[in-house]
Amino acid sequence: QLVSALEEHFSAEQQLNNIKITITAGPTREAIDPVRYISNHSSGKMGFALAAAAVAMGADVTLISGPVQLATPIGVKRIDVTTAQQMHDAALAQATQSDIFIGCAAVADYRVAEVAGEKMKKKADSALELKLVQNPDIIASVAALTAKRPFTVGFAAETQNLLQYAKDKLARKKLDLICANDVSGTALGFNSDHNAVTLVWQHGEQALAPQPKAELAKAILQHIYAQFSAN
Amino acid sequence: QLVSALEEHFSAEQQLNNIKITITAGPTREAIDPVRYISNHSSGKMGFALAAAAVAMGADVTLISGPVQLATPIGVKRIDVTTAQQMHDAALAQATQSDIFIGCAAVADYRVAEVAGEKMKKKADSALELKLVQNPDIIASVAALTAKRPFTVGFAAETQNLLQYAKDKLARKKLDLICANDVSGTALGFNSDHNAVTLVWQHGEQALAPQPKAELAKAILQHIYAQFSAN
Repeated sequence: QLVSALEEHFSAEQQLNNIKITITAGPTREAIDPVRYISNHSSGKMGFALAAAAVAMGADVTLISGPVQLATPIGVKRIDVTTAQQMHDAALAQATQSDIFIGCAAVADYRVAEVAGEKMKKKADSALELKLVQNPDIIASVAALTAKRPFTVGFAAETQNLLQYAKDKLARKKLDLICANDVSGTALGFNSDHNAVTLVWQHGEQALAPQPKAELAKAILQHIYAQFSAN
Repeated sequence: QLVSALEEHFSAEQQLNNIKITITAGPTREAIDPVRYISNHSSGKMGFALAAAAVAMGADVTLISGPVQLATPIGVKRIDVTTAQQMHDAALAQATQSDIFIGCAAVADYRVAEVAGEKMKKKADSALELKLVQNPDIIASVAALTAKRPFTVGFAAETQNLLQYAKDKLARKKLDLICANDVSGTALGFNSDHNAVTLVWQHGEQALAPQPKAELAKAILQHIYAQFSAN
């Protein structure tokens, strides 16, 4: 009984042996000028927790991270980027060498159309229009690969109509699975150490209870692996 | 000789006894929607170094800080804020109770005209115009006080024409002294532990060599105190 418990333990622990996983994490930053930028509230904790859990489960993990204040989990290969365009380029280069791609980063949808080379000066009593243009859609680009396409997992962080948006995003971007993440509260999600998500795939969904991001990460990876194996 | 050296040491150390100083530090964050924001590259290190040095020199220090990843120096009263408007309100409340006000924060000049209550959805293939309106000018508001006006010190962080902008700003905002800070390089200034500034006042200027922010902070405070006392 001890032996079978140990076997079960180790098989669960090493479930992702020989699996290559690329994970994106954190925010991106889009420069307005050398001093100012547009960003978002992602702390990177969920993506880093996924990377740490995947390594613990035996995977070969590459973590592409925007600017965050987090230490690299032991055993993880880390690629640091700042902008969405940089993350896009790194992600596409890694994706075709990966079995599973998890887009956990909160990528800026828009960047400033023309970045000022010098700090913009305030103009007296005037308003300002900032022209923004769309960034490349990283997760959709990965999912659209026709050769060497990895099993592609996205995140949907929403403040309203969460499951509906998540299902739309799954279909529209041709993802294999999506982690729907309600960020309307303050106790969970961005900057928190706890989180709750609902996993959605084409023929099913599974709600995971609120729990520490480290434990949630392991549960998410087990579900991803189950769907990846069934594919 | 030892006694006089010690006396000099302690008189320098306690130079700011009974002086009340308010310091602003760090960036401000201006929400675009619940997820996205505009901010800037200030780490808050220079303002926090000034607060720590001022306490060590005997001052009664209040530090008004935007979102940063820094511990509060021992003995410093800290007020946390997020937006420029919040920093403005806290700064004006503290300024009239202070002998010296040092505006070291990198305050966002602009905020979004209408903050979206829910996360904005990306629109297919479309650009976006973000309408920005000016924030209140904190340092100019403090310098414009007619009753209980503190000795008012500003910072000018620029990537070009540094001294010219700093002198213009000193005169235009009616500051008593300005610390001109070249942020065009990467080795000094934002996010660095080192910095170099040139102090400018109405009838003089003084360049301070590149040095750790902790030492630079002490040198800046000694110059501020000299001008404050001469006033």
